[in-house]
Amino acid sequence: MKNKAYSIGVDYGTNSVRALIVDVKDGREIATSIYPYPSGEQGILLDPSKPDLARQNPEDYIQGFFHTVSSSIELAMRNPDFSPNLVVGIGIDSTGSTPIPVDCTGKPLATYEQFKNNLNAHAWLWKDHTAYAEADEITQKAKTFDTRYLDKCGGKYSSEWYWAKILHCKNIDPEVFDAAYSWIELCDFIPAFLTDNMNPNLCQRSICAAGHKAIYHSDWGGLPSNEFLSSLDPDLVNIKKRYKTNALASDRKAGNLAEHIAKKVNLPTNIPVTVGAFDAHMGAVGAGIKEGTLVKIVGTSTCDMMVTHLNNHTPDIPGLCGIVPNSIIPNHHGMEAGQSAVGDIFNWFVNNIISSKTSNDDCHIQLTLLANELSPAESGLLALDWNNGNRTVLVDPQLTGLLIGQTLHTKPHEIYRALIEATAFGARKIIERWEEYNVTVNEVINCGGISEKNHLVMQIYADVCNKTMKISRSDQTCALGAAIFASVVGGVYDNVEQASLNMTGTKDIIFTPIPENVVVYDQLYALYSDLHDSFGIQDQAINLAHIMKKLILLRNTTLQSKGIAHV
Amino acid sequence: MKNKAYSIGVDYGTNSVRALIVDVKDGREIATSIYPYPSGEQGILLDPSKPDLARQNPEDYIQGFFHTVSSSIELAMRNPDFSPNLVVGIGIDSTGSTPIPVDCTGKPLATYEQFKNNLNAHAWLWKDHTAYAEADEITQKAKTFDTRYLDKCGGKYSSEWYWAKILHCKNIDPEVFDAAYSWIELCDFIPAFLTDNMNPNLCQRSICAAGHKAIYHSDWGGLPSNEFLSSLDPDLVNIKKRYKTNALASDRKAGNLAEHIAKKVNLPTNIPVTVGAFDAHMGAVGAGIKEGTLVKIVGTSTCDMMVTHLNNHTPDIPGLCGIVPNSIIPNHHGMEAGQSAVGDIFNWFVNNIISSKTSNDDCHIQLTLLANELSPAESGLLALDWNNGNRTVLVDPQLTGLLIGQTLHTKPHEIYRALIEATAFGARKIIERWEEYNVTVNEVINCGGISEKNHLVMQIYADVCNKTMKISRSDQTCALGAAIFASVVGGVYDNVEQASLNMTGTKDIIFTPIPENVVVYDQLYALYSDLHDSFGIQDQAINLAHIMKKLILLRNTTLQSKGIAHV
Repeated sequence: MKNKAYSIGVDYGTNSVRALIVDVKDGREIATSIYPYPSGEQGILLDPSKPDLARQNPEDYIQGFFHTVSSSIELAMRNPDFSPNLVVGIGIDSTGSTPIPVDCTGKPLATYEQFKNNLNAHAWLWKDHTAYAEADEITQKAKTFDTRYLDKCGGKYSSEWYWAKILHCKNIDPEVFDAAYSWIELCDFIPAFLTDNMNPNLCQRSICAAGHKAIYHSDWGGLPSNEFLSSLDPDLVNIKKRYKTNALASDRKAGNLAEHIAKKVNLPTNIPVTVGAFDAHMGAVGAGIKEGTLVKIVGTSTCDMMVTHLNNHTPDIPGLCGIVPNSIIPNHHGMEAGQSAVGDIFNWFVNNIISSKTSNDDCHIQLTLLANELSPAESGLLALDWNNGNRTVLVDPQLTGLLIGQTLHTKPHEIYRALIEATAFGARKIIERWEEYNVTVNEVINCGGISEKNHLVMQIYADVCNKTMKISRSDQTCALGAAIFASVVGGVYDNVEQASLNMTGTKDIIFTPIPENVVVYDQLYALYSDLHDSFGIQDQAINLAHIMKKLILLRNTTLQSKGIAHV
Repeated sequence: MKNKAYSIGVDYGTNSVRALIVDVKDGREIATSIYPYPSGEQGILLDPSKPDLARQNPEDYIQGFFHTVSSSIELAMRNPDFSPNLVVGIGIDSTGSTPIPVDCTGKPLATYEQFKNNLNAHAWLWKDHTAYAEADEITQKAKTFDTRYLDKCGGKYSSEWYWAKILHCKNIDPEVFDAAYSWIELCDFIPAFLTDNMNPNLCQRSICAAGHKAIYHSDWGGLPSNEFLSSLDPDLVNIKKRYKTNALASDRKAGNLAEHIAKKVNLPTNIPVTVGAFDAHMGAVGAGIKEGTLVKIVGTSTCDMMVTHLNNHTPDIPGLCGIVPNSIIPNHHGMEAGQSAVGDIFNWFVNNIISSKTSNDDCHIQLTLLANELSPAESGLLALDWNNGNRTVLVDPQLTGLLIGQTLHTKPHEIYRALIEATAFGARKIIERWEEYNVTVNEVINCGGISEKNHLVMQIYADVCNKTMKISRSDQTCALGAAIFASVVGGVYDNVEQASLNMTGTKDIIFTPIPENVVVYDQLYALYSDLHDSFGIQDQAINLAHIMKKLILLRNTTLQSKGIAHV
């Protein structure tokens, strides 16, 4: 290892981009800078008449790189040990599936005068759900064509994913579809731009994006067959042909930083740039993922990740978003699950429903304090965490929220706690699904804003899941993960495992399950499961007449045990 | 008919008592006065640790009579036609079942120093649900003992009713139970007090209270048998013996106004006072109830009433609160159904959940205005109206609220409309139950605060029930009904039908079903019914996986038809 060396991670999130410069020896953060996307609402282009639509302006991504990297370099220069010459690599991660329609030179259609006001010509952000009908069509056709396509992505193709979005564009806006030579994932677009290799046929393609969202798998030789794509729409075959048909892990180089870009950000030219990957996956690496360690990124939504060695047999697991060889960590199966909304549900309740007299942040703090006074089951409430659909294990965006148990006395902090508990039950469903298929969860490391800010959430997760909850040491795990890959591509470490061992860790505070809470939550979880199966699974007829009565009984028992007799 | 004559109705509501003086010729209101009960919270004594508990201070009832009658007499005196000598009768109605534990002279235990701070020694207000376990026990025992007891009250004895409350008192507070010589219904207590006939064995007993709440019916010769009561608790037989065992309708006189009371309110002595009845039943008369006319009193809860002539066969109807000969109108079966919470649910949402920046009243107005902009199904939401249990047709206080269909975009006015719709669906369930048993609803007359103040509620009720909604002309139907009975007891009319025909009417504004809304609400009602049956009826296993999807589909169709395309 060089005596002093640094790597840069650039993390394209939902609302902003962040650059992070770290010491490759121990992952220590030297400088960071953030750039909120200026377009739309918090960086997202919306259409009030289509609540499922979410797009972004590709120009924000370009400006974001220049702003964040040059300012973090400037900040790092205050450290006497640092010099731009000591930077060994740049790693890139982004949201996904976020495909961008581009012309034959790789230029986004949105930059054309003709398309600048057309939302369909912009980047289709991961959380765009407009393509639900096309996702269903893909699922149905795959069932008869090649069921393996579905086995690797949990049994259902999602409206958030690559082919559904492109097919939806063809269906609703043929003009944009025809003008698009190709559709490039954001995590591939950025390395292509940085290495001046934007030709869609030539730019490197991330195994993580291709494998988890575009039905790419070595089992059937890469991308889905032309026959299958033709059955959806013959034009999709062209889309397939105009993008690399072999995908790479992020320990591989996409290319070297182009001179004109290097100059703009005060870096030497020819620094290696990694193949991109999804933010969550690099985040998992930045949090210290390894076999047996579940990493949960808990933010507006969650992403839950596990890895198993490639030489261990890993079964297909119904309902999981993806099981992809070489994603997350090379030589491992990368496995991804997730909840479509977690923090988003808490924010919805505070921002939309409670018209708080204080700021929204203060309102979250206040509700958390009051909710913390409650015992499990004391509110008598139970909720489903489906306000934005269910990603795992039902894989169904056409689901909605549910709250049960309200009386005339129900208070906002009781609902707030019920919503937290609902997301914890959803988290447990995911863990149980893994363990049913013998992927054991020995340890849970959480990262993301909520895990750091809200101890009540972490304690409830520990109690509901009956697992100790740890928190990642870094609060920028995605950018740190990108920097870890950059240190590998830069030759500092031989592999990601070594780099991760040196550069990651967890915080001192850990949340241990409280046995008496575990007992109560087991009973509430059984009720949650009845609601989950009745509303979420076709043809599962369950009588639910016990639910309200059991909630009342548990509430009364809890009140009695707290000395508040309720006759 | 005398040239000029007046009658007085005194209406004991949940939070206040009202006196009303009317011209017996046409029911025109001459003077009115209201007295909010000073004790507790809005007249209700609460125990924070027992959300089901609701008691009242009997002294408030006494003071309420003096205050309201003397001030309305004072007001009426400004009318040159009026003189206290022209008052032909006083009618009394009250909430119920609201039994008061009294000593052997009829004096409430709460007036004793020893009991003045004991809530169990006070009046047990109708909405007190602490006796749910005893209600269940009564239901179970009646099933094996004499099923007719249940057939007349909808198949289940309620925690709101006479015997359940007394049995609960015995179980939790034997000291109060032993000190109580008898338990007198509020609607009997007031006439007894006014006519100086408070001895529990001698005071007149209302057929309406006895029949609807105390298992009194001519089919089994009056009150339930000693054997049955003994099977619950031998002491209940004494309670039965220390209260009249024959009950009367309110066209009968309880006695004449006692001199010392007449003096206090500036009335001549010896004015006839009617046998009491429940507020809702007299309200139905004040609204103009007759065969084929459903009267709905829509307030914090609803009371829904129908009558059929005694010589028409009227079947037992499962789930109805009561079918009692001679209640409501003499020579008719009086039938009562109801929803445990209507306005209370809207108030809960505004007062407890939304921390409004404006006053609560303004908040209701604002939410109604916004909700009025929505079309049926546009919110994508569906709710159950069970925050305070379900009185008809499930007769189950151990039920709670439910809201389904929330997304991350759901707004308060959408929830507000969903709650209104939920109460409308609950109203339709009641109408359908009557019509299933061939009691046809030709006409619906609404009364109570909400029907007058909130036109949106009335339009939604019309659309959901597909029935024209009319509103009672008087906004004091309960007190007017009491005054109607007073005019009969006072000899002005031969019977209640004649008096009602002359003294009641409806307003000019009527709400007619809008055909396109009826179509959409029929579909939403089918979903409501699935939830209703699955959560409300034991052993009814229904798959609910269609509910969220159908709500989304109906929402999208509605948005499209409004020109807000939602792809």
